[in-house]
Amino acid sequence: MKLEELAAVVDGQCQGDGGIEITGMATLQSAGAGEITFLSGSKLKSQLQGCTAAAVILRQEDCSAWDGAAIVCDDPHAAYAQIARILDSSPRQEPGIHSSAVVSDDAIIGELASIGANCVVEAGCDIGSGVVLGPGCVIGQGAKLGEDSRLTANVTVCHGVHIGERCVVQSGTVLGSDGFGNTHEDGRWTRIPQLGGLIVGDDVQIGAGTAIDRGALGDTKIGNGVVIDNLVHIAHNVVIGEHTAIAACVAIAGSTVIGSRCTFAGVVGVADHVTIANDVHLTGMAMVTGSISEAGTYSSGTGLMPNREWRRSAVRFRQLDDLVKRLVALEQKNPE
Amino acid sequence: MKLEELAAVVDGQCQGDGGIEITGMATLQSAGAGEITFLSGSKLKSQLQGCTAAAVILRQEDCSAWDGAAIVCDDPHAAYAQIARILDSSPRQEPGIHSSAVVSDDAIIGELASIGANCVVEAGCDIGSGVVLGPGCVIGQGAKLGEDSRLTANVTVCHGVHIGERCVVQSGTVLGSDGFGNTHEDGRWTRIPQLGGLIVGDDVQIGAGTAIDRGALGDTKIGNGVVIDNLVHIAHNVVIGEHTAIAACVAIAGSTVIGSRCTFAGVVGVADHVTIANDVHLTGMAMVTGSISEAGTYSSGTGLMPNREWRRSAVRFRQLDDLVKRLVALEQKNPE
Amino acid sequence: MKLEELAAVVDGQCQGDGGIEITGMATLQSAGAGEITFLSGSKLKSQLQGCTAAAVILRQEDCSAWDGAAIVCDDPHAAYAQIARILDSSPRQEPGIHSSAVVSDDAIIGELASIGANCVVEAGCDIGSGVVLGPGCVIGQGAKLGEDSRLTANVTVCHGVHIGERCVVQSGTVLGSDGFGNTHEDGRWTRIPQLGGLIVGDDVQIGAGTAIDRGALGDTKIGNGVVIDNLVHIAHNVVIGEHTAIAACVAIAGSTVIGSRCTFAGVVGVADHVTIANDVHLTGMAMVTGSISEAGTYSSGTGLMPNREWRRSAVRFRQLDDLVKRLVALEQKNPE
Repeated sequence: MKLEELAAVVDGQCQGDGGIEITGMATLQSAGAGEITFLSGSKLKSQLQGCTAAAVILRQEDCSAWDGAAIVCDDPHAAYAQIARILDSSPRQEPGIHSSAVVSDDAIIGELASIGANCVVEAGCDIGSGVVLGPGCVIGQGAKLGEDSRLTANVTVCHGVHIGERCVVQSGTVLGSDGFGNTHEDGRWTRIPQLGGLIVGDDVQIGAGTAIDRGALGDTKIGNGVVIDNLVHIAHNVVIGEHTAIAACVAIAGSTVIGSRCTFAGVVGVADHVTIANDVHLTGMAMVTGSISEAGTYSSGTGLMPNREWRRSAVRFRQLDDLVKRLVALEQKNPE
Repeated sequence: MKLEELAAVVDGQCQGDGGIEITGMATLQSAGAGEITFLSGSKLKSQLQGCTAAAVILRQEDCSAWDGAAIVCDDPHAAYAQIARILDSSPRQEPGIHSSAVVSDDAIIGELASIGANCVVEAGCDIGSGVVLGPGCVIGQGAKLGEDSRLTANVTVCHGVHIGERCVVQSGTVLGSDGFGNTHEDGRWTRIPQLGGLIVGDDVQIGAGTAIDRGALGDTKIGNGVVIDNLVHIAHNVVIGEHTAIAACVAIAGSTVIGSRCTFAGVVGVADHVTIANDVHLTGMAMVTGSISEAGTYSSGTGLMPNREWRRSAVRFRQLDDLVKRLVALEQKNPE
Repeated sequence: MKLEELAAVVDGQCQGDGGIEITGMATLQSAGAGEITFLSGSKLKSQLQGCTAAAVILRQEDCSAWDGAAIVCDDPHAAYAQIARILDSSPRQEPGIHSSAVVSDDAIIGELASIGANCVVEAGCDIGSGVVLGPGCVIGQGAKLGEDSRLTANVTVCHGVHIGERCVVQSGTVLGSDGFGNTHEDGRWTRIPQLGGLIVGDDVQIGAGTAIDRGALGDTKIGNGVVIDNLVHIAHNVVIGEHTAIAACVAIAGSTVIGSRCTFAGVVGVADHVTIANDVHLTGMAMVTGSISEAGTYSSGTGLMPNREWRRSAVRFRQLDDLVKRLVALEQKNPE
């Protein structure tokens, strides 16, 4: 596409030669001939020096630092995202069912759907139009995938799971596994069959190696527009509100209900049967053991320290209650 | 099944019309015609109002709040588990070897075993009677699966691994991977072949996306009745005692020995070469760096706080040792 | 091999009958006829009593405790690693393409490469000589695997990923997944296509169930000799220096740059856009929220305590800032 065409798409102003053909996108440091890049803010402005990109997306106030071709706009990061969608050259799997796939006669395969090599689609599945299953995906009995959803290679969707439209699921992920449901009888764990389902909304993104359990009774529910990163654990009967974002390695225990528009940073742990309000933001590695009823940002843990100093603080942490008693004793000797 | 038949199975007392046909199970909020639900304790008693279940399992003391059909018993949760096993309608894979599976002539496949589509069973494997392998499972050379064990789709069992009877393993899990074994020579890591095995006992449950390494020398051992959740890491030569429960995202480093009947909540981390006694309970995100010789409940970390307040506490944590020195100085000025 | 031959390989001194045939390796407790074991240091010396190994690798100073056949050397652990490589009897997959594999006509398959059952190798792939793909691996379009790299079963390599020579990747791992890239527009997350790649160096080891994302723009880079354990998350555009070791369940957020020769213990979390110097060592569960410019060992968190005591310390942690104010008030009443 021509630079001026891209500028029009993002409502930006084209500077320099608008006729340049743009064929790809790259970073400020690596972009070369035919490639466009972007400068999100002034912080990295110095990198424009020596930049060999064919064109740069930037803000008006950063223009003075670049005399080449450019798209000038208010939000270069959003423009980058839009242009990346246009220039996306990731390989697309051809529509149709690969000859090596095992597809039940009793499954509905929508128009233009693409079922990759060595996929298994069991009886009663309903695969929407335009759905793409990468190689090696397994879709269990009666599962339903909405239109234009894309699963990359080796994704497992268990029986009866419902996935909405335009979802994107990365490799190695398991949707609808049996949760950790047991009764403790006579010192032994006895398995409780997991009879519920998993309902994933529309426009949900799920990363690689993530596991989302089906409900024990009733369903696990992932709201529309939720984005989930790699290696996330979501237990049975968890409910996640719309447009909430969950970063990598987060663990959410059973029956917890999470509001809309929340953001959880990486390695957050959330206990079971907890309710979290809308617009709650959790910083990395936060430990949530109870419900959170008010929007806001919450944290736990201690900051990184050189090991030797940390050891001293950690020892004192153990003594904290005793230290407070000593403080109280001193206060009693020093009355107001 | 009829309600009175279910009541008999769980040693409960049938109230109301015992002839009702029960076809499924659901939650207090969602159960409808033909469905049974349960009220584990009085806490959720108010949900009986408006409940449209065909019948409810509950305790004598909660009966006054429900005038429909019921099974009255001492432990509704245990009765629920038992009835869920009876009403379990999860699809069952037919016995036999799917035509697309690749099964070595040199493997033993037991009676009534079910080998799913696109499975690979290598030479020397011994697959017990009644075993179910979901689609896409790979069973490496010489591995042995005991009777009636069930692996859902896309499970990997590496060469020589032994799995007991009646185990259940969820999708994406890897059993018997090579552990993190290296020597550090001249600033480089050199791989040590992992020559040990992995022995999983009977009645073990393992969640989705979990990885259990084989031993370096000698075996990694998972005791009878152990239950392990999703995305758990168990390193080489770990030994886990019978009936221990390990929740999601727990990481257990190499050669650590864990007792029987322990419970580890989610995201617990355990260092290598540590010994943990029987009946040890670890709360969520606990960090275990040394051995635990006494039964009990252990914890670490700090509680969740609004981010602004947490920042202040975190700063003070760094200064703890200095604060204690100041406290001591004050004490010297204020002798007993 | 004969004991005297093994002694020569490791530059050790053979004691006793050098003609013994050694067929395997096992632990001090389990080694029997034909098996060699090792004693790394004097700590476990007492285990030599009752040891039934055919021979033991040990240091000169421990010889007095063992009167059987032996290899005496300075570093028994390094000798063990070397001998384990010689005695490694893990099954080797035969060279050639399994008849059930789906290999594009447009892929290059090197000499002596072994493509396992049900593998999928897409167009444009370049599979080096001696490469082994276990059953069920999927290699996406245009990916490149260097000579003698080995992937066990069910590994996913996404399109365009480059993997060096002699790498070893365990099952369930995903290399080159799309990262967590979104813009937040009008309260919704909009996916940004991930146009970058993933470049894995030579002699890299990667554990089971790990996920490494491709770059958003530009590449994610794993240096030569890096070793990565199970269930590790490495986000888009992370760069890891040579010979760094990352233990299980570590999460590294996007665009973070990590030096060479670092070691991260298990369950470490590292924030995005952080730079970590060479030779930085992080203890288990450390939380890294900012850059680390100096080599050294760093930690965070609090130590394990009996739950009842921990609760008291945790309460006091919340009050720390207030406690310091009370300390300051006392200091003002007790001037120097």
